Amino acid sequence: MKRIISRDNAHYRELKRLHASARERRRSGRLLLDGMHLITAYQQRCGRPAEIVLSDSGAGRAEVVDYLASCPSGMLITQLPDALWAELALVDTPSGIMAVAGWPQPAAVVDLAADTVALDGVQDPGNIGSILRSAAAAGFRQILLSADCAQAWSPKTLRAGMGAHFQLDIHEGGDLPAFLAAYRGQSVATAVNATADLYTAGPGAGAVTWVFGSEGQGLRAAVLAATHLQVRIPMPGACESLNVAAAAAICLFETVRRRQRAVDGGR
Amino acid sequence: MKRIISRDNAHYRELKRLHASARERRRSGRLLLDGMHLITAYQQRCGRPAEIVLSDSGAGRAEVVDYLASCPSGMLITQLPDALWAELALVDTPSGIMAVAGWPQPAAVVDLAADTVALDGVQDPGNIGSILRSAAAAGFRQILLSADCAQAWSPKTLRAGMGAHFQLDIHEGGDLPAFLAAYRGQSVATAVNATADLYTAGPGAGAVTWVFGSEGQGLRAAVLAATHLQVRIPMPGACESLNVAAAAAICLFETVRRRQRAVDGGR
Repeated sequence: MKRIISRDNAHYRELKRLHASARERRRSGRLLLDGMHLITAYQQRCGRPAEIVLSDSGAGRAEVVDYLASCPSGMLITQLPDALWAELALVDTPSGIMAVAGWPQPAAVVDLAADTVALDGVQDPGNIGSILRSAAAAGFRQILLSADCAQAWSPKTLRAGMGAHFQLDIHEGGDLPAFLAAYRGQSVATAVNATADLYTAGPGAGAVTWVFGSEGQGLRAAVLAATHLQVRIPMPGACESLNVAAAAAICLFETVRRRQRAVDGGR
Repeated sequence: MKRIISRDNAHYRELKRLHASARERRRSGRLLLDGMHLITAYQQRCGRPAEIVLSDSGAGRAEVVDYLASCPSGMLITQLPDALWAELALVDTPSGIMAVAGWPQPAAVVDLAADTVALDGVQDPGNIGSILRSAAAAGFRQILLSADCAQAWSPKTLRAGMGAHFQLDIHEGGDLPAFLAAYRGQSVATAVNATADLYTAGPGAGAVTWVFGSEGQGLRAAVLAATHLQVRIPMPGACESLNVAAAAAICLFETVRRRQRAVDGGR
């Protein structure tokens, strides 16, 4: 157990950079997992994290004590005063434990025949996390993010993903038009002005890529043009817009519904 | 035009309380609308806000200048240095303009036969705003929030709602078990362990109330027991959980799909 009491400590400064800087996370290939839920989800798929970081008050919690008892004796553990810990943590989650871990590596190549969720310029970490969670629940394993999306491995995105990240094959910096041109399934985008409607047109029975665009701008024209099908989500209400993560949930689970109906014999 | 330059100014302190305190918003019956989009959405349904607050840099923007030109000459306008304004605003939206406005009043009584979205202890402002936006898009106009939900009129919830708030009839502090006991349509909740499945069971053709529970705990037992139908959202993936706003979008738009199919003659 290592104890840090100064903000000037070199290792503490390194942890703060991991918390705050997408560039530092990418450079080092490491991320911060805040809370037991994320640590457990990571460990089930990717093995033990490299280091555990505790707050003074977190170190006494029953679930933390239990977890530490299960760790190998050589495990790197760092403990911090609550005030220092709070600067590394998400403000409203005083979990008291986090881990430093390596980024899970995606498959070496993008699968051109797999069910995929492709995001074009999605900026809000909470939206990306929620979409990853919906994708994992709907059975879509491959995720492709354009270079101008927010980073999938930030603390906020990880928290919103609730562990879904570690069930998925996440490719960042993807070239969406090139992927869509080569894709061997059907690619579908939502567009407010599309003539086809999700419930009557929708995707077919084979592999599908759903493409969702940024909160403000929607899809870039080059990405929209590269999709096979554009559909409109029918909105009978007075308000004709949806949060992108809500729209993604609707489309991914309409795909689930269609597949279930196909298996059940066309009910 | 009034100009405030000191943090100690009484009116500035009042604005800060409106930003930060749910109690102060409730006590005064007022809210802060951050950005032109929300101000416009409010004005279309509820008339002019009581006051406009500008930042020094916001005052020069074209859309702000245009909006001010459309305001009556007696309009109360307050301008602040950017540093003071930033303490009232949502950190990542430097809109430069906000308004102080009265809460829209819901209908005097809750309609026991209307399509309704009922929320039980939902805590995250972003989730509540996203659910309100999905409800408005799906044509559900009546919203009932239990007393332990986060406030519907906070700056974060308003931003996530993107103006949907002003299309809706929002009842806070609702008694969900009493409402459900008296409700004359069908009430439906999602439950992970339900035997019925959303796509095969789902709600019927009449009025429906969808009930969604808190992020961590789900529905209270008394609320779940008061619903007519519990359904499971089928999740073929490895991850068996969804963000509450994603789950709400799926359920509300499955209702839209069923109604559209009924109108189209059972396609």
